This record gives sequence, C-alpha cells and structure tokens, in this order.
Amino acid sequence: MKYIDGGVCSAKGFRAGGMNCGIKVGSTKKDLAMIASDVMCSAAAVYTTNKVKGAPLAVTKEHLADGKAQAVICNSGNANTCAPNGMEIAEKTCEITGGALGLSAEDIIVCSTGVIGQELSIKPFESGVPQLAQSISYDGGREAAEAIMTTDTIPKSIAVEFELEGNTCYIGGIAKGSGMIDPNMATMLSFITTDAAISPEMLNKALKKDVKTSYNQICVDGDMSTNDTVAVMANGLAGNAEITGEGMDYDAFCEALSMVTTYLAKKLARDGEGATKLIECQVTGAPDQETAAKISKTVISSNLLKAAIFGADANWGRVLCAIGYTDGEFSTENIDVEMASAKGKVLVCQGSRHKEYSEEEASKILAEEEIQIYVDMHQGEAEATAWGCDLTYDYVKINGDYRS
Amino acid sequence: MKYIDGGVCSAKGFRAGGMNCGIKVGSTKKDLAMIASDVMCSAAAVYTTNKVKGAPLAVTKEHLADGKAQAVICNSGNANTCAPNGMEIAEKTCEITGGALGLSAEDIIVCSTGVIGQELSIKPFESGVPQLAQSISYDGGREAAEAIMTTDTIPKSIAVEFELEGNTCYIGGIAKGSGMIDPNMATMLSFITTDAAISPEMLNKALKKDVKTSYNQICVDGDMSTNDTVAVMANGLAGNAEITGEGMDYDAFCEALSMVTTYLAKKLARDGEGATKLIECQVTGAPDQETAAKISKTVISSNLLKAAIFGADANWGRVLCAIGYTDGEFSTENIDVEMASAKGKVLVCQGSRHKEYSEEEASKILAEEEIQIYVDMHQGEAEATAWGCDLTYDYVKINGDYRS
Repeated sequence: MKYIDGGVCSAKGFRAGGMNCGIKVGSTKKDLAMIASDVMCSAAAVYTTNKVKGAPLAVTKEHLADGKAQAVICNSGNANTCAPNGMEIAEKTCEITGGALGLSAEDIIVCSTGVIGQELSIKPFESGVPQLAQSISYDGGREAAEAIMTTDTIPKSIAVEFELEGNTCYIGGIAKGSGMIDPNMATMLSFITTDAAISPEMLNKALKKDVKTSYNQICVDGDMSTNDTVAVMANGLAGNAEITGEGMDYDAFCEALSMVTTYLAKKLARDGEGATKLIECQVTGAPDQETAAKISKTVISSNLLKAAIFGADANWGRVLCAIGYTDGEFSTENIDVEMASAKGKVLVCQGSRHKEYSEEEASKILAEEEIQIYVDMHQGEAEATAWGCDLTYDYVKINGDYRS
Repeated sequence: MKYIDGGVCSAKGFRAGGMNCGIKVGSTKKDLAMIASDVMCSAAAVYTTNKVKGAPLAVTKEHLADGKAQAVICNSGNANTCAPNGMEIAEKTCEITGGALGLSAEDIIVCSTGVIGQELSIKPFESGVPQLAQSISYDGGREAAEAIMTTDTIPKSIAVEFELEGNTCYIGGIAKGSGMIDPNMATMLSFITTDAAISPEMLNKALKKDVKTSYNQICVDGDMSTNDTVAVMANGLAGNAEITGEGMDYDAFCEALSMVTTYLAKKLARDGEGATKLIECQVTGAPDQETAAKISKTVISSNLLKAAIFGADANWGRVLCAIGYTDGEFSTENIDVEMASAKGKVLVCQGSRHKEYSEEEASKILAEEEIQIYVDMHQGEAEATAWGCDLTYDYVKINGDYRS
C-alpha cells in the first residue's frame, strides 16, 4: 500500500476534466469539473450537518438513494444556496450532464461551491457541460482538481495503490476547502474514485467511519459551510471479488481510503485561508476515543492558539485553556504538552505546570511550516489527531473582502 | 432608574483603588486593584466553566460559601493558573489583604488575570497590598477599573441609580475583558457593588439569571478563559428593607443589575482585541428563548461574519450559514436579515432569499462603529440579543505576540 502521484483518474476507467464556463464572471479560472466512470459505480456520500443546505445536496442525496452513480458534475463560484430556483437548477444540471454523457440524470452527483445567496443561471451549464463531456480524459484529474477551487491556493490531489487478493487497485481523490472549514466538513468538497469492487452498503459504511478521523478532524475557522460533500465512487474495474462484508479486504480498503482522505484533509488544513502553517494536534492518554478526538479538535480550533502559532509563540497556556473548555468528562490535572517540528521538539508543560525550556529553541521549532502539538492526558489509552492552521492577517483580509 | 457616570464607588460605603505593585514586570501600568466595603456584604459570584481553572477561583468559591464578603483583591498580569503553589499564593493574598483592611481572610474575594502558567510571587502583594489599603478612597473606582486591565484599551465602568420603596440606591460595576471572551465569560472579570440590601440567596439568584443575558451573550474569539469571574457585593447601606424574596423590589434590583451588566458586556465586546466595531445580533421570532439566545450568539461568534463586518461587507450568506450550524431544532426556511447602524438600515435577506438592495447604501451603513444585525426567524415569539466584535488584523497581531 503506497502513495502515488495521482488523483481521481488513477483508478481504472475514470475520466475527468475542468473548464471555465462563465460562472466565475470576469475570470478565466476554471469553474466546472466533471468526473465520469466508464461503468456504473457503487457510490456513497456524506454531507454538511448545517441546517441551511445547498440545493445540490438534496438532489445528490436523492440520486444516491440506490447506492449507484456514474458521474460527478461540480461548479465553483456560486454555492447555489439560498438562491431562487436552486433545486430546479441542480436537477437541470444533472439532466444536461446525463444527456451529454449518455447517462441517466439519476446517476449524476451534483455539487456547487462559492458564494451563498446569488442566483445561479443554467446557461453556463447548457453551453459548458456538453463541451466538457467531449474533453474529459483519463489524465484530466488535475484539471478537475483545479476547477473545484475557490479561495484555495493549490489544487489538492492524491492516490494510493493497494492490493486486494492479488489484484492491484487504485483509489484517488481531489479536494477543495480553504475558509469555512470546521466541524463536519465545512465548505469542503472531496471526490474520491476507486476501481476496487465494493458494495454500496460497505462503501457507505467505510466512508462514514473514515470522515470521523479525516475531514471531520480539521478546522480552519470554526465556520461550517452549507455545501460540504464527500462523495466516493467505486467502479469495480480492478477485478477483485466484490467486498460485501467485513474482513481483510474491507480493512485494506478502509486503510487505503484513510490514506487518501487523511492526506487531503491535511492539505486542506494547510491551505486554510491565509494560513502559513499546518498545526497538527495529537492527543494520547485520553480516557476514550471520543474525548481524544474532541480535545485535539478543540486545540487546533482555538483562535488564540492559532494566532500564537502564527507568531511562533510556545504559549502552552492556550493549549491547556482550550483543553479545559472541551466538552466531556476528564481530568486536567496531569497534562504534558510538547511542541515539535522538523527542527526538533520541546516539552513546554509537564503535569499541567510550566516546564523550563529555551525560548530561543522553541521559536526556532515554531518557525517551521508544519507544527506538531503533542498532548498526553495521562488517564487512558485513547488517542486522536486533528489538523488546523494558523490565524493570520491574510485570513482577515481574504474574508473581509471575499465577494469583491 | 437611570445610568450615571460612576462605577464601584457609586454605591454608599465602597472604597476602591489601584496601583502598580510590580506584577507587570518592567511596566508602570497598574496591576493591583482593591475594592472594600465599610460593612459586611451579601456576596455572590459566577465563574468560568473551563475545566482548567485559576487557583483564585477555588479560594474565592470557598470564601463565598457563606454568602458574605467585604473586599475584593485582584491582580492583572499573571493569571495564577497552572502555576506552582497557586492555591497557596491565592490564600496568602487574602490573608495579607484581610490583615491590611482589618478583615478576616475568609471575607476576601481574590481574582487574577493575565498569562497562564507563570509563577506568581507573593512578594509584590506583601509590599503592595498594605500600601493600597491605605490609599483606597470613595472615589477610586476608576483606578480599580484601570488596574484590572490586560489588553483592554479602555477602562470599563458604569453605575445606575434606582429606587427601592423610596430609598435611593446605587449599583455600579467595572469590567475587563478583551481577548478570549466567549461562552460563559472567558477572561473577563467584573466586580459589581451596590448599597441595596438583599439577602445572599436572592443576590445569587439575581446574578445567575443576569449573566445568561449579559456576559454569557458576548463573544470576542470563541475562546473561554480559565479565570472568569463576576462578583457582586451588596452592603445594604441604602437603607431599604432587605430583599429576601421575589417581588417588585427584586424585579427592580434585577433591572438595575441588568442595566449595569449589559452596558459593561457591550463595552467588553466593543473593546475585543483589535476590534473596530461592535456587532449586535438581535434575534426575534424564535421558537423558544434558549434557541433565540443560541442563534444570536452563534452569529456574532462566526469568524467569517466578523471578518465580513470588518470589511463592511453585507454578506448575509454568512449570517444564514451561522444560523444553520446553530445547535437546536428550528426551521431555516423563512428568515429575514436586516443590517443597521446609526446611518440607517437595509433588508438584505427576506424569506431566506436574497433581497435586492443598494450595495453603496449597505457599505455606508456598515462603515459605522456600531452594527446591528436583526434576524427574524418567523416561527415564534422568543427573542434574544448577543454582542461581539469584528475580526481584524490587529486581533492577529495582538495574539500572535501576546507574551512579549
């Protein structure tokens, strides 16, 4: 099982592409992505828990009710949320996409990301989708990764090669995120494709379990979007015996899926709006898994901690403070905090008390772009990790003037 | 019942003062505040719900177990949290204060605010407290307000004059806050004094009810401190019949208390670290009071909304988005959003859909320093208000380099 340089076209039988169809008005940036499988796929998705949801989510949910899909159509630049005729536009988009690909509209996954509350016209889809359907290719994964970007600074894409009973399989994905990423995947989209054969039920189960430790453990700013969706399609072209229950094959599939989603989740956190650093918080010694997950998530979500890390300040008081307001039952009496990076590591707090350390050394460690915060709760065996980014001047700048 | 220019010395029989005793090392800023009543007071306090608590909180809680207190001693510059010998220092501080004022240590309220995890020496208290006890005066409220400040830019102080059965009473308070203010009063301290006569039980009840609509409805950055305390002392010198149960007098007292705490809460929000604007979110038409409070609080807590308001951007999508991830059961189908300031008001969203408005007019309205966001949920009679501030470059600057 290993990472390879790839994306949604690494698995057999998936074509993809991206184009500018005129949704990002006055821009030449790509705003329409398409991914299509040569054959029908098992498919599953998870969605934002925000009560205000983009219209495409309802349409996709309906289309995935049978656990099957064959293509994804996704626009950026407009969220199709709180917009007039949103459902109609999302449905019509699926019809146009199905028509262009020779598929049923019910087998299309539709997503949108961008500004909320602005009317989305069907016109750019009418002209763009048929054109894009002609141009998608078996090496167009990168174009699709670019076409789903909003304030992202880099396209995010990865793939994993693994074996299922002697059959080489691939699973790959793309993601977009940036601002407004928090609990339960805010304004993040991720599309994952695999040629492994797996039943819709097991695919759904694997995805639901996976997001708890990947996309749901990242935070950029604590805001949760209206449009988040992670969708996965498995077309079975790798030729393995279909995974229909738990066992070694299912475990291997889950591991490969986790490698893809964890990689992309970290990329999303690192590319948070205005971010200069990736912050990883690894909690060990927690009384249970849920508490470990909550503590690590709360630490990387703290504005004060995020600003301190931006300033390369080993302010462990802010780590303890964030742990302290985490929901749950646990003791705060004997906590160790270690800060680390490629430049070394330094124990800054032991037994919930200050530990003497060299400020100079700490500053050097925290000047790096990837920072680890290790928290040992000393009260159990459970552990969890969460990823976030620093809070910077540029975050404020980007979000103070996002629409213009 | 009316606001007057005053503070903790507006009520009869309260002296106060502030000084620099050397806790804020290398600074001449005041770091020690004292408030003392001429006679024993009914007293009550509420504290942070952070699991990591400053040592002074435990000591104060113990001292208030009998519902009585006569003085407050508070230092700024060091939180005495996660520090060696924290309890010992807090207890010793009360002994010194009691000794200097001729009171029992058990009748002293002790508080600390500042950096977490640094050792606090008893020495500055040994030299400073007796000196301060000599200099406190019946017009020293402002000095006390200054001495509790950390990153606050202005001292916060107010008083209210009211009548209880023909007796003129006063209630006044000071507060400090700035960063790290959220759910349940993070790094904020407020001391309130009154000459009204009220039993410890009713004072406690009044305070607990009050903070739900005042200090617990403000947010600067979502972080909750380890040391928050709101303490109130009532010395009875106004001569009214002691309030020992519910009724008109109790209601009048609660109203006066609310005028003081709401005023100070808004000042805290406005003086949030780096803030340039006060944001008030008033929710009406909610299904119940708790939901109304949660929605208003979630809106003013959204980093994205706070950054948009900093940029004078009428981005109502961020209001809807924040409402959508508020915990609770309610509909998001028919929401109106209006933005307002002294320059006018503009309806930007009606029935959860975009409402045409002049961007130019909206920008003019949002350029003001006090912004109101009116949210009508159209599904009930409950309403609530919360206060926050914008998220600015300076917030990042202050918190990226707080300790140095």
